[in-house]
Amino acid sequence: MKKPSIPKGTRDFSPVEVTRRTYIMDTIKANFAKFGFQPIETPSFENSETLMGKYGEEGDRLIFKILNSGDFLRKVDDATYAEKDSNKITSKISEKALRYDLTVPFARYVVQHQNDITFPFKRYQIQPVWRADRPQKGRFREFFQCDADVVGSTSLWQEVELVQLYDTVFKDLQLKGVTIKMNNRKILSGIAEMMGAEDKLIDFTVALDKLDKIGEDKVKAEMRDKGIAEEAISKLQPLFSVTGTASEKLDTLKTLLATSEIGLQGISELEFIVDAISTLKLSAANLEIDVTLARGLNYYTGAIFEVAAPGGVAMGSIGGGGRYDDLTGIFGMKDMSGVGISFGLDRIYLVLEELNLFPETVTANSKVLFINFGEKEALYAMQAIQKLREAGVHAELYPDNAKMGKQMGYADKRSIPFVVLAGESEMAAASYTLKNMKTGTQDSVSIAQLSEALA
Amino acid sequence: MKKPSIPKGTRDFSPVEVTRRTYIMDTIKANFAKFGFQPIETPSFENSETLMGKYGEEGDRLIFKILNSGDFLRKVDDATYAEKDSNKITSKISEKALRYDLTVPFARYVVQHQNDITFPFKRYQIQPVWRADRPQKGRFREFFQCDADVVGSTSLWQEVELVQLYDTVFKDLQLKGVTIKMNNRKILSGIAEMMGAEDKLIDFTVALDKLDKIGEDKVKAEMRDKGIAEEAISKLQPLFSVTGTASEKLDTLKTLLATSEIGLQGISELEFIVDAISTLKLSAANLEIDVTLARGLNYYTGAIFEVAAPGGVAMGSIGGGGRYDDLTGIFGMKDMSGVGISFGLDRIYLVLEELNLFPETVTANSKVLFINFGEKEALYAMQAIQKLREAGVHAELYPDNAKMGKQMGYADKRSIPFVVLAGESEMAAASYTLKNMKTGTQDSVSIAQLSEALA
Repeated sequence: MKKPSIPKGTRDFSPVEVTRRTYIMDTIKANFAKFGFQPIETPSFENSETLMGKYGEEGDRLIFKILNSGDFLRKVDDATYAEKDSNKITSKISEKALRYDLTVPFARYVVQHQNDITFPFKRYQIQPVWRADRPQKGRFREFFQCDADVVGSTSLWQEVELVQLYDTVFKDLQLKGVTIKMNNRKILSGIAEMMGAEDKLIDFTVALDKLDKIGEDKVKAEMRDKGIAEEAISKLQPLFSVTGTASEKLDTLKTLLATSEIGLQGISELEFIVDAISTLKLSAANLEIDVTLARGLNYYTGAIFEVAAPGGVAMGSIGGGGRYDDLTGIFGMKDMSGVGISFGLDRIYLVLEELNLFPETVTANSKVLFINFGEKEALYAMQAIQKLREAGVHAELYPDNAKMGKQMGYADKRSIPFVVLAGESEMAAASYTLKNMKTGTQDSVSIAQLSEALA
Repeated sequence: MKKPSIPKGTRDFSPVEVTRRTYIMDTIKANFAKFGFQPIETPSFENSETLMGKYGEEGDRLIFKILNSGDFLRKVDDATYAEKDSNKITSKISEKALRYDLTVPFARYVVQHQNDITFPFKRYQIQPVWRADRPQKGRFREFFQCDADVVGSTSLWQEVELVQLYDTVFKDLQLKGVTIKMNNRKILSGIAEMMGAEDKLIDFTVALDKLDKIGEDKVKAEMRDKGIAEEAISKLQPLFSVTGTASEKLDTLKTLLATSEIGLQGISELEFIVDAISTLKLSAANLEIDVTLARGLNYYTGAIFEVAAPGGVAMGSIGGGGRYDDLTGIFGMKDMSGVGISFGLDRIYLVLEELNLFPETVTANSKVLFINFGEKEALYAMQAIQKLREAGVHAELYPDNAKMGKQMGYADKRSIPFVVLAGESEMAAASYTLKNMKTGTQDSVSIAQLSEALA
């Protein structure tokens, strides 16, 4: 029989991995709650019509569809069936699909439950999503998203709080030196106005983003290659020297976009956020203005966030988000502005691992193993184990009266730090022998002392 | 546009519901960990061959299948296609399926990772499963299972610990009066031996289970209706009067099954557990022997557990489990005995709700809302909010400078217990006005006092 396996792009998580992932998620959750976000959960699969057409053509293709139950071909008329066209037949044999992200289900939730929701609604959601992407390093077909969004308010205080939220989460994870990059869709619109070519905006920002790496001349060459007019490039020349603090950058932009109403609006929005954060201060992260940030261009209408791991850690963004003026319009509920951010769980995991930042207390191991010397001795052990568990100590009895070496080996392989030996002589003395697996020292202790030593 | 909806048998969970479910799951998890169980997680979908054929024909039908991506009909040869037979075509167009329970994926995990696992392996797993069952009250197409299993040891101490585990979880949930019913497959085998008809065993136990409700005569009539021989019924007459304590019941059984080797073995196994528990004592639950417990008959080989809600709460079992001698045999790894239990999250939720046992502290609400009086005032508020959050207080600022009534209404609807008002006069005095929403009292306090009052 061949060893069983799991589908490409999916993962089993071992005890250590689950414990570490839970540590990250619990840290994020605790901060979501401190900031007044409330948890919701939505079903793993939605009606196909809820998801299809919401992520573009590529997205539709990457959505996992669930086959109808029973005699699913019954619903396919013979004419359609005869065509043997996968695309055409899909909607006849599949009516449900796995969640592709948490944003569309959230929008659906808000519209469906609008009468029960008090707006502005601050919700968080931590659940898996599924994408039929080609699996590759760091890209999975099942992964968790950790999202916090506010819907029903255009207040920029939300953006300020989202910057603070990133900061406190990374502070609690002991991850210093994270950079929170911000841009604003309206600034990008202003730049497009100046260029006279909205459709070249992505090419322009992608090229500009390489300034540090390849230098001004090569950036300009790339822009020309992409068909950006010489006039546009020279008009936007000041963008090549947007440096300094956030305030200095915003000043440069004000001059450049002086004639663009929408551009100035974007600048003033960023200014509000930068000013508030400079008063309130961040603990673990830096806030940076980055006009090349064009993430989710067709989607976001105001603020754009992206979080970069500390310098020196080669890793894509570990978080991102932004404001979208019309979150729920796709389901017929107008004028609901939303703003939200997401934490990249898998990448944060890798960063913490690389920097050795998982606390030692984050472990799936028991604190103590009781050696099993037989029926009576085990019952004596169980009485102590019960007391230890009541005191919150993770304690176990080796289930079988196996050879000493085997039992000690189990404690060793599982990295259980303490072992208790309690045989006939201990029972007679109402004591327990506590062995420290690291140092090898052994002490004869009472049950009260045992509890104290292990709690 | 019609309001969006979710698929039949699935659920959205509101903030209150998520918070209460999390409270139950966290309580279960904490106890799993105290007993030395380690968490694992497996993918939501498995290769179809991993799941199909493991749950019987009915199970195969109820497994949700995932449609292959891309041009999935390409793999279907024309001859097969021409038949238009849903059953035959399924395996050609679907290679993955959603998890149906946590036991088969666990067995697959153990076999796949056997070289990395230290046995005996105590694992817990809390994840959703999916079944294409007809949705009805209390039965869903997506629901969480909470399982703890030990694999790799036949020690009966595991059964003892699983009884204790049920007990401590229900104790921590303040749910008193739960009954943990136990039986043993070997006792059922003994009864079948006495009856001379293994195939009538289920009918016999189902009828016997009604003894309290319909009385001895009607139970016997039902047995005769089901074709159970008069001789078998009279031979098993002592089962009609199996009463008293667990020890007394076991004594009656010993007499009845005196000639059945396997029956006596089952009795002695139960006796070991009953004796250990009578020494170690339970806090919130009662342990009861129930020879009518035939749950998972074709599956379990030793202990059988089922947990009943406290008397007076009409609810099916809120947990169950048992021992299966050959957990991993389906994947070619022999002689791995397993024993495990499961908690019924949805039903436990309903029981706690009915008995009003969710602690008041289990809430998704913020502790305090700061009223927004404008830009400067909001910044002043944010400075206090930041300090409160650092102290762990769930605090929020109303994002917009809306009318007072609207902001107070938001606090009220969200049941936020405290509101802070901080306008120009408070700013001048470096103070905050703290309003208790329940009593209506207002106090002028410093930031330190605020922190103290809300922490």
